[in-house]
Amino acid sequence: MLIDVLEMDVFFNPKTVAIIGASEKPRFGGGTTFYLLNSKFKTYPININSDTILGHKAYKNIKDVPDEIDLAIIIIGNEYVLQSVKDCIEKGVKGIIIESAGFAETGIEKYAKIQNELVEVIKQSKIRVIGPNCVGVSNFSNQFTSSDMDFTTPKGYIAVIAQSGVLGNVFIDWANSQGIFFSKTATIGNKVDVDEVDLLDYLNEDPETTVITLYLEGTKRGRELKKVFGRMKKPVIILKNGRSEIGSRAVNSHTSSIAGNDRIYDALFKQYPNVFRVDNFYELFNIAHVFATQPLPKGKNIAIVTGSGSLGALACDEIEKQGLILANLTDETIGIIRSVIPNWVSIGGTIDLGPSMFQTFIPSIKAIFKDKNVDCVLFIFSVPRVPLQRMGANRLEGFRIHMKVLKQAADEFKKPCIIVAFGSRWIFDYVKDATEYSKSDLTIPIMTQINHAIKAFRFMNEYNKSFYNDKK
Amino acid sequence: MLIDVLEMDVFFNPKTVAIIGASEKPRFGGGTTFYLLNSKFKTYPININSDTILGHKAYKNIKDVPDEIDLAIIIIGNEYVLQSVKDCIEKGVKGIIIESAGFAETGIEKYAKIQNELVEVIKQSKIRVIGPNCVGVSNFSNQFTSSDMDFTTPKGYIAVIAQSGVLGNVFIDWANSQGIFFSKTATIGNKVDVDEVDLLDYLNEDPETTVITLYLEGTKRGRELKKVFGRMKKPVIILKNGRSEIGSRAVNSHTSSIAGNDRIYDALFKQYPNVFRVDNFYELFNIAHVFATQPLPKGKNIAIVTGSGSLGALACDEIEKQGLILANLTDETIGIIRSVIPNWVSIGGTIDLGPSMFQTFIPSIKAIFKDKNVDCVLFIFSVPRVPLQRMGANRLEGFRIHMKVLKQAADEFKKPCIIVAFGSRWIFDYVKDATEYSKSDLTIPIMTQINHAIKAFRFMNEYNKSFYNDKK
Repeated sequence: MLIDVLEMDVFFNPKTVAIIGASEKPRFGGGTTFYLLNSKFKTYPININSDTILGHKAYKNIKDVPDEIDLAIIIIGNEYVLQSVKDCIEKGVKGIIIESAGFAETGIEKYAKIQNELVEVIKQSKIRVIGPNCVGVSNFSNQFTSSDMDFTTPKGYIAVIAQSGVLGNVFIDWANSQGIFFSKTATIGNKVDVDEVDLLDYLNEDPETTVITLYLEGTKRGRELKKVFGRMKKPVIILKNGRSEIGSRAVNSHTSSIAGNDRIYDALFKQYPNVFRVDNFYELFNIAHVFATQPLPKGKNIAIVTGSGSLGALACDEIEKQGLILANLTDETIGIIRSVIPNWVSIGGTIDLGPSMFQTFIPSIKAIFKDKNVDCVLFIFSVPRVPLQRMGANRLEGFRIHMKVLKQAADEFKKPCIIVAFGSRWIFDYVKDATEYSKSDLTIPIMTQINHAIKAFRFMNEYNKSFYNDKK
Repeated sequence: MLIDVLEMDVFFNPKTVAIIGASEKPRFGGGTTFYLLNSKFKTYPININSDTILGHKAYKNIKDVPDEIDLAIIIIGNEYVLQSVKDCIEKGVKGIIIESAGFAETGIEKYAKIQNELVEVIKQSKIRVIGPNCVGVSNFSNQFTSSDMDFTTPKGYIAVIAQSGVLGNVFIDWANSQGIFFSKTATIGNKVDVDEVDLLDYLNEDPETTVITLYLEGTKRGRELKKVFGRMKKPVIILKNGRSEIGSRAVNSHTSSIAGNDRIYDALFKQYPNVFRVDNFYELFNIAHVFATQPLPKGKNIAIVTGSGSLGALACDEIEKQGLILANLTDETIGIIRSVIPNWVSIGGTIDLGPSMFQTFIPSIKAIFKDKNVDCVLFIFSVPRVPLQRMGANRLEGFRIHMKVLKQAADEFKKPCIIVAFGSRWIFDYVKDATEYSKSDLTIPIMTQINHAIKAFRFMNEYNKSFYNDKK
C-alpha cells in the first residue's frame, strides 16, 4: 500500500513531462499543451508531424527525448495509443495519463480489444497508468495540470476523484465561482490501471487534503474498496450514478464500468460512518466545502436566522426530513432578541428578523451562537433588488459589518455556520463580497439551496458522533 | 364567482391609487412610493407629517383626497392599520393592499385581535383587501406594482399567487435572470379577505396567463379550494411548505396559517390532473416555464443529447425515478448519427456527442427530433472554460447556429425541448446568449438542474394524458 501511495505521487508532482500528441491546434488537449510548455514543469512535446510546437523542439517519439521522463500525457487517436504506451514503457516512464477516448466505452469489439491489450501490457510492467477517456489530474499546490485548467483561485482542502471529465475542469470552475477550492483532482476514465482505491489511499496520506469527493460509476475492486474505506482517516463524500437500470446501461457506454446493483453500493457506503452519499454534483461540492471549512457540531440543534418567514418554514421541513432538530432557544436568548426587534417581528421557531434585520442582527446573532441549545446556525439571506439599489453602497458596508460579526461569533463559539443566499446570482455575489470570500479559504460557506446546507449539518453530525469521536 | 373576478381586477388595473404611509425615506415601501409617484398611475401620497412627498401634494388622510380612489396601499405601523381601513371604507375605496406586518403571525394576542377586528370590519363592507403582511401585486402588462419592483424584462405567461413576500420580488428577479417571465403576481400574506381561491378564479379568466404558480402555507377554505381546482382550465404548479410538524409551526408564526396535516393537502392536489406539487422555488418556476413555452409531449420517451457521458448517466437515473423512458432511437436515426460522429463516440442509450459535438450536432439533432420514438428532447450542455476562451468568438458564433437549428427542429416536429446548462453561471449565460433568449418569450427553457427538466417532462405528460386530451 505504501508503495502504491509513493507511485501515485508521479501524477501530481512530475519533474519531467512528455505530451504525446502535443499540437498547436485549438483541439482537445490543446490547452494542456499550451499551459505546460509555458510552465515551470520541464515539458517535451511529442508530435510525429512537427519539428517544433509553440517554439519548443518536438520529438517524433518519446524514446528520442534526451532526458528521463516522469510522466507522459497521451492525447492521440485511439488506434495509436497501444504502441505509444509500449514506447513509454521502453523509455522507462514512471506514469502515463491516457486522455484519448475510444475504447471499451464505445461498445465496439475492436476498441474494447485494444483496451484489454493495454491492461495486459501495463500489468507486465512497473508503469502506472491513469485513463484512458479522462482529463487526468490537477494539483492546486504546485499548479501542475493535464486538465485544460488554469489556476486563478487559491488552493483549498478538498480532493476530487472522478470517473468523469466534467469534474476535472467544468465543475472545478463552477465550484471556484462559489468560493470552493481544491487540493488535488484526478479523473480516472476507464481505469485500465489506477482507480479510486489507489487514489483514496494516496489522498488519505496527503497533508493538503482534508475531505475527499468521489464520483463513481462503478468499481472493479469491491473488496479493496471496502478495505480502503475502512482505513480512511478523512470524510469521503460520494456521488454514484447508475442508480437505475437505464442509468447503469448509460454508465456502461460511458466508461465501460459495471454499475452493478445499486443497493449493494448503497449498503456498502452505509457501513462506513465517514462515507456519505449525495444526489448531485452541486451537493457533492457544497457539502465537502462545509466539511473542509467548518468545525464539527456537537449536536443536532439548528438555529435558523432569516429575513423571510417562508424560507424559514421551508428550512424547517428540511430539518425534519433530515432527522435534525430546530433549536429551542433559551429564554435568555429570546429575551435578548425581543429587546431589539420591533414588536411585530416573529421568533416562534425560526428567527425571522424580517426587513428589520439590519437593526437587530448584531445583538441577536451573538446571543444565538452563545445559546447552549444551539449547535449549528443557518443564516438564510434574501433581499429584493430595487430597494437595495436605492440604498446604495452604505447598505453593503453595513452588511459587511454584520457578516464580520457572524464570522466572529462562529469562531468564538466554535459552531458550524452556513449562509444560504436565496435568489439571483447577484445576491450570492453580494454575500460573497460582504464576506470577502476570496481572501480567505477558511470562512463560512455560501450556497443557494437550503437542503444542501441542512444535509451538510446532518452528515457532519453523523461524522462527529460515529467516527471522529471514536478515533480521538 | 363572476363578481369576484371583476372585483379582483381593481388590484391589477387601478385607475387611481393612494399610498397610506407614503414616505421619502429609503424604508419598506419606499420603492413603491417612488415608482408609483413617477408612473402613469394617478397616485396620491397620504402622510400625516408631510405636506409634500417627492414633489407631490400629500394628504393627512385618504378622506381628504379630492378624487375617487380605486386602490389604497397601506404601509403604516400595525397599530394604525385598523383605523386606516375604516377611513378607506368611508371614502368608498374599492380595494386595499395592506403591506404592514405585525398581526396574527406574531403570536401576540394583542396583534391577533387587531387582525380579527380587521376581518370583521371588512366583512361588513363591500371592500376587497389583500394582506396584511405581504408586498401586494405586480401586473407585467400595464406595469402596475406595489411590490418594490421595476420592469426591466418582457412580460410572460406565468402568474404567481404566494403567501410569501419573497415571491413578490426576490424570486421574480431570479426568474427574470433565467429568462422566465410573468403576467401577474400577487402576494397574499395573512389573508384577512382575498386568498388563493379568489385569485385562482381571477387568473383562470386572465387571457394573459397560461400557467399559474401557487406558493401555499395553508388554506382556510379547503372546500372552495377543491371547487376552484375543479374549474381551472390551466395547469397549476404548487409549492406548499409545512410538510413537517416543525415546518407547520413555523408557518403559523409566519402568516398565521394552519398548515394542517400535509397528507391531506397531498391527497387533495393529487385528485386534479392539472395540479402539480413541487419541492422548491427554483423548481416551481423552472417547471412553470416549460408549461408556458413548450408544446405538450405525445409520450414518455426522452432523448438525451449531451457532451458528457456522466451527466447523461445521471439524467438516466432521473428518467427512471420519474417513471419516464429513455428513447430507443430507430436504426435510421442511429445510422445518421453514426455516419457523422467519430468511431469512438458513444451513442448507447444517451446520445453522447462528446467533445466532437460541434461537428456532429446539426445532422444528429434533426434526426433525433424526427425520430418517431422520441417525444421530448433534453440537451445537456457543459464546456470547460479554458479551451473555450482560447477558441474565442468563433466558437460562440458556431454554437449560436446550433441553437438555431435546435429551435427550428423543435418547432418543426412540435416536440418539447429543454436545455440544461451545467456548471458555472457563465455557461448558463453563454447558452442564453447563443439562444438570444431575452429577445423572445417563446423559446427553449434553460435550467441548471437535470431533475427539474425531467420532472417538467413528466408533469406535461400527465397533463396531456389526463387533462388536456379530456377537455379537447
